[in-house]
Amino acid sequence: MQPGFVIPLWADLTAVALGGVQGALFASNFRGQRRLDLLGVAAIGILIGMGGGLIRDLLLGLTPATLQSDWYLITATVSALAGMLLAPLLQRLNGLIVGLDAVVIGMFGAFGTSKALAFGLPAVPSVFVGVLAAVGGGVLRDVIMGLPVAVMHVGSLYAVAAAGGSAVLAVLHAVGVQLPVAAVVGVVVTAVVRLLAVVFDLSLPEQRNLHRRRVAVETGLLPVVGRPEDRN
Amino acid sequence: MQPGFVIPLWADLTAVALGGVQGALFASNFRGQRRLDLLGVAAIGILIGMGGGLIRDLLLGLTPATLQSDWYLITATVSALAGMLLAPLLQRLNGLIVGLDAVVIGMFGAFGTSKALAFGLPAVPSVFVGVLAAVGGGVLRDVIMGLPVAVMHVGSLYAVAAAGGSAVLAVLHAVGVQLPVAAVVGVVVTAVVRLLAVVFDLSLPEQRNLHRRRVAVETGLLPVVGRPEDRN
Amino acid sequence: MQPGFVIPLWADLTAVALGGVQGALFASNFRGQRRLDLLGVAAIGILIGMGGGLIRDLLLGLTPATLQSDWYLITATVSALAGMLLAPLLQRLNGLIVGLDAVVIGMFGAFGTSKALAFGLPAVPSVFVGVLAAVGGGVLRDVIMGLPVAVMHVGSLYAVAAAGGSAVLAVLHAVGVQLPVAAVVGVVVTAVVRLLAVVFDLSLPEQRNLHRRRVAVETGLLPVVGRPEDRN
Repeated sequence: MQPGFVIPLWADLTAVALGGVQGALFASNFRGQRRLDLLGVAAIGILIGMGGGLIRDLLLGLTPATLQSDWYLITATVSALAGMLLAPLLQRLNGLIVGLDAVVIGMFGAFGTSKALAFGLPAVPSVFVGVLAAVGGGVLRDVIMGLPVAVMHVGSLYAVAAAGGSAVLAVLHAVGVQLPVAAVVGVVVTAVVRLLAVVFDLSLPEQRNLHRRRVAVETGLLPVVGRPEDRN
Repeated sequence: MQPGFVIPLWADLTAVALGGVQGALFASNFRGQRRLDLLGVAAIGILIGMGGGLIRDLLLGLTPATLQSDWYLITATVSALAGMLLAPLLQRLNGLIVGLDAVVIGMFGAFGTSKALAFGLPAVPSVFVGVLAAVGGGVLRDVIMGLPVAVMHVGSLYAVAAAGGSAVLAVLHAVGVQLPVAAVVGVVVTAVVRLLAVVFDLSLPEQRNLHRRRVAVETGLLPVVGRPEDRN
Repeated sequence: MQPGFVIPLWADLTAVALGGVQGALFASNFRGQRRLDLLGVAAIGILIGMGGGLIRDLLLGLTPATLQSDWYLITATVSALAGMLLAPLLQRLNGLIVGLDAVVIGMFGAFGTSKALAFGLPAVPSVFVGVLAAVGGGVLRDVIMGLPVAVMHVGSLYAVAAAGGSAVLAVLHAVGVQLPVAAVVGVVVTAVVRLLAVVFDLSLPEQRNLHRRRVAVETGLLPVVGRPEDRN
């Protein structure tokens, strides 16, 4: 562990709060066979807000940082409730949801990778921890909500974006850049890759399939803005 | 860690045994597209009997207590087998299954919260650990059996009951009550809230929906006793 | 911990490589409603290659060995890619896939059990850790791919084979056999039980049901070789 390396509480809580809002928006947007109750929406918000940090610390064999202070759960719960209340308003702002999502993934990926590096892990597993921290909350959400797991099926390059940002972070760290600086660059790279993937509708091979796209749109994983062919 | 705080083995094994019986009853009651084999029923019993303790200790970053002694697995397996053998008899006693379930949730919630408090965690995350310990086994069961996750969809106030009991426990601990006493009160509060929710058919907003109720009854999550409108 | 007990890196990496190939073959064989993209296939390969070791170390409360060196992830990724490229060729060799699967389960079971024993756990939980390490990767794969969990529903005696090999290992250890020798015997027992179960179509009670057999064949869990009645 690098002496004194700690993710600043304000940065960690910002990721938790954004994750809580994003999770609650996703869940309250959900129109499946069965609607979620208020507690279910809050639970998804808490899961997305805190899941990345929990997965990171479990993989590192540490008592989760998110359980060491009252503030994480309070922040996740309050922001999930705020996301729920504001959902009718925010659901029209698809761009905002997608943007939030990109920043949240970038933050969890960067925090995961930099904590793993600071903990002494080699570069490759550190990037792996970052990717799992970035996409793990979403995987848990999909499994618990009974949805197809978006990371596996939807060509929206979530994991690729997280891996890209985390890899840039690890390379910068290897060449001597300070972790906080490298982490900020990692967040930006992940968020930009993810946003470009959404804007230009990029995907990996074997992905362009109307059926799948429709599922993605219906479940709120992809915005319908600007791509009218998805709507039918 | 408070000096000498240990959940007594007999109490822990009681929770494991009750969980094993309850899980096996649930699983042998299960009539989905595919029936479970004997091993599957035993696996669900072991999962419910030991899942709460495993989740609690993983969240605390400890080697699970349930793996430190042979007795946990032996107890869970024997009680799951007993639950399987007695299932044809016990399935008529819906009240017993619901009651067992309420007590099991209460015990896992109270043990999770009190171990987290004794481990030095603040009150809010301690309650969170208690809730996850209480409902986590059931979430894993539903995911592995391919059922909708009951905690998310069924308005039976599982998580609310566990949170209530765990919160009362944490408050009593904060005002100086001994943990064992606080834990007993926590078990009682959780079990009573859960039973009241079943008896009076309480639920959170956005929950009263016949379709969902029917699923809950069919999957054995809710008893059909006394509520004839659920049967059609 | 027995002084100096370490699973040799070459043995661990062999299990990871075989798991990576097997996972990628399974995933590229998958023809569900939605096909996986390249990343999805690679992710399943990595999951099967590394899942057993991750689950084992999380249960033991250790930082996962698979994250302590770059080689695990590199091996899993390269072998998953190789499995993907060779899939059109290897898919005709059903026997090879089933054989690989049996050996992978045996290795993860034996490594899980022997590491738990070396770590000082009693015999029964050590066998339990071995079984979870052996079948855990497959459970995660099925949950993430939205398939019925094979261990629960398909009577192919996965868990029984893993438990048999792990139990033999634990008994040999208890009577004084060196762990490496006991581990090799454990691998062989598990693989042989699993292969005999496939060859002789063994299953536990309540399992012989054509519908389930067909699902198992379609999802690649059972080979169609030599059992023409499964093909219609």
